[in-house]
Amino acid sequence: MRPVAVIGIGKTAFGAFADRDLRSLAVEAGQKCLADANVSPSQVEAYYLGNFAGPSFVGQNHLAPYIAGAMGITGVPCTRFEAACASSGSAFYHAVSNVASGQNDLVLVAGVEKMTSQSTPKVTEILAGAGDTCGEVRAGATFPALFAMIARRHMYQYGTTREHLAAVAVKNHENGAKNPLAHMRKVITMEQALNGKPIAEPLTVYDCSLISDGAAAVLIAPLERAAEFTSKPARILGVAQTSDYVALDQKDDITTLRAVVSAAQKAYQMAGLTARDIEFAEVHDCFTIAEILATEDLGFVKKGEGGPFALAGNTRLMGKLPINTSGGLKSKGHPVGATGVGQLCDLVIQLRGDAGERQLARHSVGLAQNLGGSGATAVVTILGAA
Amino acid sequence: MRPVAVIGIGKTAFGAFADRDLRSLAVEAGQKCLADANVSPSQVEAYYLGNFAGPSFVGQNHLAPYIAGAMGITGVPCTRFEAACASSGSAFYHAVSNVASGQNDLVLVAGVEKMTSQSTPKVTEILAGAGDTCGEVRAGATFPALFAMIARRHMYQYGTTREHLAAVAVKNHENGAKNPLAHMRKVITMEQALNGKPIAEPLTVYDCSLISDGAAAVLIAPLERAAEFTSKPARILGVAQTSDYVALDQKDDITTLRAVVSAAQKAYQMAGLTARDIEFAEVHDCFTIAEILATEDLGFVKKGEGGPFALAGNTRLMGKLPINTSGGLKSKGHPVGATGVGQLCDLVIQLRGDAGERQLARHSVGLAQNLGGSGATAVVTILGAA
Repeated sequence: MRPVAVIGIGKTAFGAFADRDLRSLAVEAGQKCLADANVSPSQVEAYYLGNFAGPSFVGQNHLAPYIAGAMGITGVPCTRFEAACASSGSAFYHAVSNVASGQNDLVLVAGVEKMTSQSTPKVTEILAGAGDTCGEVRAGATFPALFAMIARRHMYQYGTTREHLAAVAVKNHENGAKNPLAHMRKVITMEQALNGKPIAEPLTVYDCSLISDGAAAVLIAPLERAAEFTSKPARILGVAQTSDYVALDQKDDITTLRAVVSAAQKAYQMAGLTARDIEFAEVHDCFTIAEILATEDLGFVKKGEGGPFALAGNTRLMGKLPINTSGGLKSKGHPVGATGVGQLCDLVIQLRGDAGERQLARHSVGLAQNLGGSGATAVVTILGAA
Repeated sequence: MRPVAVIGIGKTAFGAFADRDLRSLAVEAGQKCLADANVSPSQVEAYYLGNFAGPSFVGQNHLAPYIAGAMGITGVPCTRFEAACASSGSAFYHAVSNVASGQNDLVLVAGVEKMTSQSTPKVTEILAGAGDTCGEVRAGATFPALFAMIARRHMYQYGTTREHLAAVAVKNHENGAKNPLAHMRKVITMEQALNGKPIAEPLTVYDCSLISDGAAAVLIAPLERAAEFTSKPARILGVAQTSDYVALDQKDDITTLRAVVSAAQKAYQMAGLTARDIEFAEVHDCFTIAEILATEDLGFVKKGEGGPFALAGNTRLMGKLPINTSGGLKSKGHPVGATGVGQLCDLVIQLRGDAGERQLARHSVGLAQNLGGSGATAVVTILGAA
């Protein structure tokens, strides 16, 4: 297996765009990405697309050749990958395998979701399709409810508090306010976060990520060819995807997501690194409690210490281990199919030193963690400055 | 890249099963497949699932870990692939790449669709999501209408007749009647086929494939390990996936499907074979005209000669080049996400000599062609007796 690099990135803004359709968002991200690497559509050897629920949100299926064709990419494998909110993380995982094994050189990986054309109740119903519709969902659970149960159990077992959750929200809004492509660029106070409208107790509106439209793309190539396309390649040090049961009631312990733990172990092993080598991370904060779980399951802190770690400021831009410098799903937005590849773009922006007022001092090794459902799919990727 | 083999197969019957849900079908196919190779769920290193529209048909998304978990497969990459009616062909293509490159040894590839819980108009609408919903579909085209246009143009350009189409239907029903797992085990006469109820002229009900429930699975492994699991492995000689524009109006010539031509060329090249080396084939007869196009685009006959070739009996069981000995999508049924892997199971049944009264005399090299939409995705696979 040969080393692989990210040689180009492209993102749309994340937000609610009444005048944009799914395809135009994906095409914009793809074209920006190709332009970033100075690559033409005819050079692209395969197109890997992550999308969770385009057919349900906008009625269009068969999305990979549909979008690729609009960019002038035909005659190559164009495939849609679906793994709930980890759809584009999964597309990336498979694309890296493809390039690493020497089958293709230039592979475009993208993610897209167009959610805001549906009402919030309908969006909630579509998202619930990532849970067990014959069990927990039929019983009335939505994703906020599932993560509320996780939060309650984490509070009971480890003493996690509402303040811990709120600290995550305040920090992510603080970062997102500085990100020109973020959906909700609004600083919030601890008091606001603690007094948000209840959604599924103990989670308030400030504990939940946003319903967004958006797309993101990365172009990958063998590391040995990276210099042909960019002066700032990002090396893919490790990447792994694993799975667990879909239904929450099938898991022995809902305060830890086994798939995240195993994907992280595999990615660290592939990279020859440990959690202590990671300088910054983009994690899947679909809910604030999910960021706390991720901080623990990725090995950054011991189980139960994620809340205090966040409240003490360790995960802020100037902290020991900055997390979600992009603003995270909470503030940047969460167009679900785009989130995994969007996180990778955000890592690369830091690795390149292009993050503006969010730029970190230490930015040579970053990790992204992309989650599907309540932990049935996890993808962990580690990128380094090449 | 190392040689890869199919070491196990498993299929449900295809049909309309009011008492079966999507997951139970996929689990049945997967378990039959693992039993066929005497492999336990804990040995499976990755699960690749093809499914076109589970969320739209039955409301369940995130299907790969959902089904894998029910078989006791967790902690490994579980991914859903969507490429319209070529979804499981695409899953297979990517799985073969994975094993060929040495990343995993035992990979379970499956396809599933549960369609009959929706009304026919709703099914037609969901299927239309594989076309261009902003163009041809908005203008009123359904898939029967799109393939009717292809048929009309083929008739105009090459003199193809209603009799040519009917010959395909009669032959596929003749084969399907002998297949215990086929959806519609009914012999039809030429007269019946010619006088079927019009669906989209010139296509009648006998020119259209069936709306079915069903699942299929294959287990693949490095050829060098095949003997551990089976005495009759099937070697994967070639496999390729390519793409074209989704909308029919974007194609220069609708009497040939460019993606099929290019996927076939790549698969032949990988196998070191030509069309003349193929002894039998399973092709994607979503409509009878599609089988005629396939016969031509795969290089079995010259463009325009597919109709006369079928009418002369060349593609029957005793013919020069038997096509769709399973009964094809027309008679066996077309649970869209299951079709690609289902075709591969049918090839393996012939390669092993297990096809009963459908068994061919020459059965050492077979080809499967799986199509998405009106040709935006094509997957071609060549299997040989190992």
